[in-house]
Amino acid sequence: MATITFSPSGETIEVPRGTSLLDAAIMCELDVPAPCAGQGRCGRCRVRVASGEIERRSNAGMSTAEVQGGWAVACQTYAGAGAIEIDVPERREEKVRPHGHAIAEPESLPITCDYLQNPAVKLFELEIEPPSLEDQTSDFDRLRRALGRQHGIEELRAELPQLKRLGPALRHANWKVTVALEMRDWVYGSYLPPRLLRVYPTAFPQASLGVAVDLGTTSVVAYLVDFTTGRVIDSASTYNKQIACGDDVISRIIYTKRKHGLERLQTLALESINELLGELQQRNGVEEREIHELAIAGNTTMTHLLLGLEPRALREEPYIPTISIAPKLIAGELGLNANPVARVQILPSVGAYVGGDITAGVISSGMYATEKLTLFIDISTNGEMVLGNKEWLLSCACSAGPAFEGGGVRDGMRASPGAIEDVFIDDTSWEPTFRTVDDAPAAGICGSGLIDLLGELFVTGLLDKSGHLDLEAATARIRVRGGVPEYVVCRAGDGGAEKDIVLTESDISSLVRAKAAIYAGFEVLCTSVGVDLADVEQILIGGAFGQYLNVEKAIRIGLLPDQPVEKFHFLGNTSALGAFATLLCVNVRQDVADVASKMTYLELSADNTFMDEYTSALFLPHTDLSGFPSVHAALAKRTTGNRNGG
Amino acid sequence: MATITFSPSGETIEVPRGTSLLDAAIMCELDVPAPCAGQGRCGRCRVRVASGEIERRSNAGMSTAEVQGGWAVACQTYAGAGAIEIDVPERREEKVRPHGHAIAEPESLPITCDYLQNPAVKLFELEIEPPSLEDQTSDFDRLRRALGRQHGIEELRAELPQLKRLGPALRHANWKVTVALEMRDWVYGSYLPPRLLRVYPTAFPQASLGVAVDLGTTSVVAYLVDFTTGRVIDSASTYNKQIACGDDVISRIIYTKRKHGLERLQTLALESINELLGELQQRNGVEEREIHELAIAGNTTMTHLLLGLEPRALREEPYIPTISIAPKLIAGELGLNANPVARVQILPSVGAYVGGDITAGVISSGMYATEKLTLFIDISTNGEMVLGNKEWLLSCACSAGPAFEGGGVRDGMRASPGAIEDVFIDDTSWEPTFRTVDDAPAAGICGSGLIDLLGELFVTGLLDKSGHLDLEAATARIRVRGGVPEYVVCRAGDGGAEKDIVLTESDISSLVRAKAAIYAGFEVLCTSVGVDLADVEQILIGGAFGQYLNVEKAIRIGLLPDQPVEKFHFLGNTSALGAFATLLCVNVRQDVADVASKMTYLELSADNTFMDEYTSALFLPHTDLSGFPSVHAALAKRTTGNRNGG
Repeated sequence: MATITFSPSGETIEVPRGTSLLDAAIMCELDVPAPCAGQGRCGRCRVRVASGEIERRSNAGMSTAEVQGGWAVACQTYAGAGAIEIDVPERREEKVRPHGHAIAEPESLPITCDYLQNPAVKLFELEIEPPSLEDQTSDFDRLRRALGRQHGIEELRAELPQLKRLGPALRHANWKVTVALEMRDWVYGSYLPPRLLRVYPTAFPQASLGVAVDLGTTSVVAYLVDFTTGRVIDSASTYNKQIACGDDVISRIIYTKRKHGLERLQTLALESINELLGELQQRNGVEEREIHELAIAGNTTMTHLLLGLEPRALREEPYIPTISIAPKLIAGELGLNANPVARVQILPSVGAYVGGDITAGVISSGMYATEKLTLFIDISTNGEMVLGNKEWLLSCACSAGPAFEGGGVRDGMRASPGAIEDVFIDDTSWEPTFRTVDDAPAAGICGSGLIDLLGELFVTGLLDKSGHLDLEAATARIRVRGGVPEYVVCRAGDGGAEKDIVLTESDISSLVRAKAAIYAGFEVLCTSVGVDLADVEQILIGGAFGQYLNVEKAIRIGLLPDQPVEKFHFLGNTSALGAFATLLCVNVRQDVADVASKMTYLELSADNTFMDEYTSALFLPHTDLSGFPSVHAALAKRTTGNRNGG
Repeated sequence: MATITFSPSGETIEVPRGTSLLDAAIMCELDVPAPCAGQGRCGRCRVRVASGEIERRSNAGMSTAEVQGGWAVACQTYAGAGAIEIDVPERREEKVRPHGHAIAEPESLPITCDYLQNPAVKLFELEIEPPSLEDQTSDFDRLRRALGRQHGIEELRAELPQLKRLGPALRHANWKVTVALEMRDWVYGSYLPPRLLRVYPTAFPQASLGVAVDLGTTSVVAYLVDFTTGRVIDSASTYNKQIACGDDVISRIIYTKRKHGLERLQTLALESINELLGELQQRNGVEEREIHELAIAGNTTMTHLLLGLEPRALREEPYIPTISIAPKLIAGELGLNANPVARVQILPSVGAYVGGDITAGVISSGMYATEKLTLFIDISTNGEMVLGNKEWLLSCACSAGPAFEGGGVRDGMRASPGAIEDVFIDDTSWEPTFRTVDDAPAAGICGSGLIDLLGELFVTGLLDKSGHLDLEAATARIRVRGGVPEYVVCRAGDGGAEKDIVLTESDISSLVRAKAAIYAGFEVLCTSVGVDLADVEQILIGGAFGQYLNVEKAIRIGLLPDQPVEKFHFLGNTSALGAFATLLCVNVRQDVADVASKMTYLELSADNTFMDEYTSALFLPHTDLSGFPSVHAALAKRTTGNRNGG
């Protein structure tokens, strides 16, 4: 027998060994969602096992980190013996976009980080000899001399903004100061002397903080990092204000053709980041100039726009960025609301469509340091992917189009409140249940909802492998409007929805093309180095979209390769995590440069095999079912089941 | 016999050998000024010997460069035999302030300059391989690759302003470009890779220009320099706009206590330089961004104000600058109207009152590279001076006060139109003749006029060695007003003067204190290293004021040591020349840093012997006449002459 205690409600129940946690929760009348009724398909009944003996049958697409953190799919996890403590997440919490609100620590990264031995920013207390007629050394040289004598630091650099404050600061502090120095700045592989970031009176509370930013096309996320503890002490996120000038990178590049268009996009990028900096500063009682360093990861277009670099050549064949490595920058130069001399590290890109966000992903995934053959995937408008390991890295970007972001789909939308983000279709009634972002009345379908819906329609037999809806099916949910068949996932009025929300065969065709482009990318990467998808030892999924992706559902539609679910790991916001690692870990900075320079970029539009692979992938899940054994088996079972039941 | 031809008038005359050029000119009725009637005292009868045999008896305080350039004092220069060609300067020309309008060349500097072998800025033609789907290297890396393949330059740096233009510039030029690179940028003694300054279409006329600036308290002078020829191709000057906030450095430092006072002074300094940049650009058809580098020399206060550094500690004991070496700067960061990434080199200072202008003087005088024991002098509000040679350099600044700049003197004024700039007093009639700047109606007396007047009053016996006017002298020019004796140098109405212009005994006292402070400086420098003023092998006079200083007259009042006139050399605007050398000659840049770090600064307010020397110098020319043998002899002769004539 086991005694299960559920937090925070405090309910306790005795159950026999082998009882599923979901059943136990239901017995306690706890509000644990389970639209698939315990089949382990929807993955929504997540709980956290705080302590006690349990047995997991499936982890339904959770990342290793999540599993290690105790998260479990309640319907697939069974009680052992003795006391078991289970945390049930508050439903409201779960609905809020978890944009980086997780508190990251360097120990959570699969890489070594030398922040303790080799901090990027360090504080030094100094008692400076006051000047006299006999010793008229300048303020700066006096400070430097004291650093040499008291801390062995012989050289020091400083920029104008800090020098402007230096004289008054030293005198105000009566020559007893604490200085914050950037310890590890380099140019062309050589480390430069430490750089003065701030002078504090010694009696004053001093901070040593930095900010890591994921500058995404849609969302911008910032982590406030304490260099002394290595912890992310707060995070914030917002939509990229550039959305006002276009949803995706292509429309924004086009926007730069307007008069002052580029300036406006640059300003909006800066304002987006500054909003987060302001929020983090205010919430944590931090002054602007206490932010001593920043690291920013974004795709190549985002980086170009942030720096005000002309992006047009990025979208015109042959797709050339102005730079892949950003020059040395400081916050004041860019207009970021931080210490004006804070170094701003922009993560380097590899090509026009493999940007700093992917370099960040390769870093934070640790794939560049492992011997395992790894496939890293970041799915957005462009499915960007990297195959390789510590020896080599091969990347490409598949122009998937905006379908998975809700673009070009009749009722598609971004993952904002009211977006249907997961769907379950009962295979008997063909009736859907779904969840919307923030539980708001349904207004459309976002990316993860589209994948779910497509997969559900397919496995329930309502959709055939060519992407045609079964007009013969005994459900009013399938209908024809304007000559185009569609499935009604939500009827006007249901839960407050203002209109019917549907998925049309045209939408399905867009989605299939998108998934085909991505899948073809996997195939081309593997083919070009002579390996098979089955040889890939781990498949790491990063990016904001990856956070909401259900592997099994994605495999069902042929978006992801049909590999054992244990191979898949969701890493969360790998772009933000990579920026965090770059910010905090001095050793990683060299890795970042190495990764970007060693990563090969495969231009798919110049690759003949890509079009062949793409064409083969324009079916659900694929022309060649032998590559999708689990889907094949499921379909066979369903057919049998239907026959048995029919 | 000699045949003298005068240009531009074309007059020719035959004269016997030994005829003075002045006499020959007078015979031709040419307009050569000679207020001292050929005694070689006023030095105003300058002509240029274009060719022919002549004999010089005195050069009356001209610089070696002037003498080498053929300039001669007509009354002290005698005809030899054969054809002699003499250029008589147009009088009007002579009256225009020659602020740096001389066209300098590196060969005119007494130092080696490696601008030909080792240019600071260099142009490279490139044919860049256009990008393709097979070669998607970024624009910047592509440029760098071409530089490596075509010119052996493997690394390249660039800042944001140039990167913003890069993509369009390369495409516009169809990948055939000329790039301007800064070749010699360093940090802490290590040279950094070349830095991108500009990308031109190859077909476009390209320039490689820099500007050297002397940022003086009163005047600002700029030289436009061509890096390829090493020549100063134009120059411009203006008053420092900061004059609106105070005439001297002390009043400007006090001005910074006002709200936004420092910002205003910084803006005015920038506006002063920008005015000159604009003038040079317009006059020479040069674009703003073709100015690829700048070097700026100024005193420590000017440098602090230009950079916006708090200057208050400069005027409060113990007189501490914020910095002596400026950080690495680019024009865009400061707000200078040049190529935004143009490196701005600020000449380093040694102390609060020995600034970059003095470092520039030590450089352009070549004293740091000679074995000769040299005294370098720059007289302004502070008499700044450096004693030494290639082995050692000792500097000090004497707080002379503004008397020689016309400050604290009843009718004192700056050397602007109407300022009496030289004076001759007839030793029989005691009537003065004088010249004003621009021949405008007399409005006051400027520094050189004050020295002249003081000396003339003294040598004509109207003033005694204690600074008292001879009230018994038979001239109405000496009178007493409000109990204070004064000499009337110009009466209201004379030549359009609106008022009497006088020199009072109070004024004389100020001037004597000023000259005493400066002379005491010489003595203290020599004493502190155990040499005698007579051991000094050359006395080099720099600074704007030095250009108008007559050595013999300055010796007469004890402002300069009584050394043979051959030891004195006027170097012109040594601050501007030092900036020019720093800008053009890469080898000199290291010298500049070495000079500033090796120069010792003697703080006179902490030196007891200074006050003793100062007290001894409060007489005309000095308490100890043995140090002034030539003045002593002249006085003895006058006394005898007067007695003979009386």
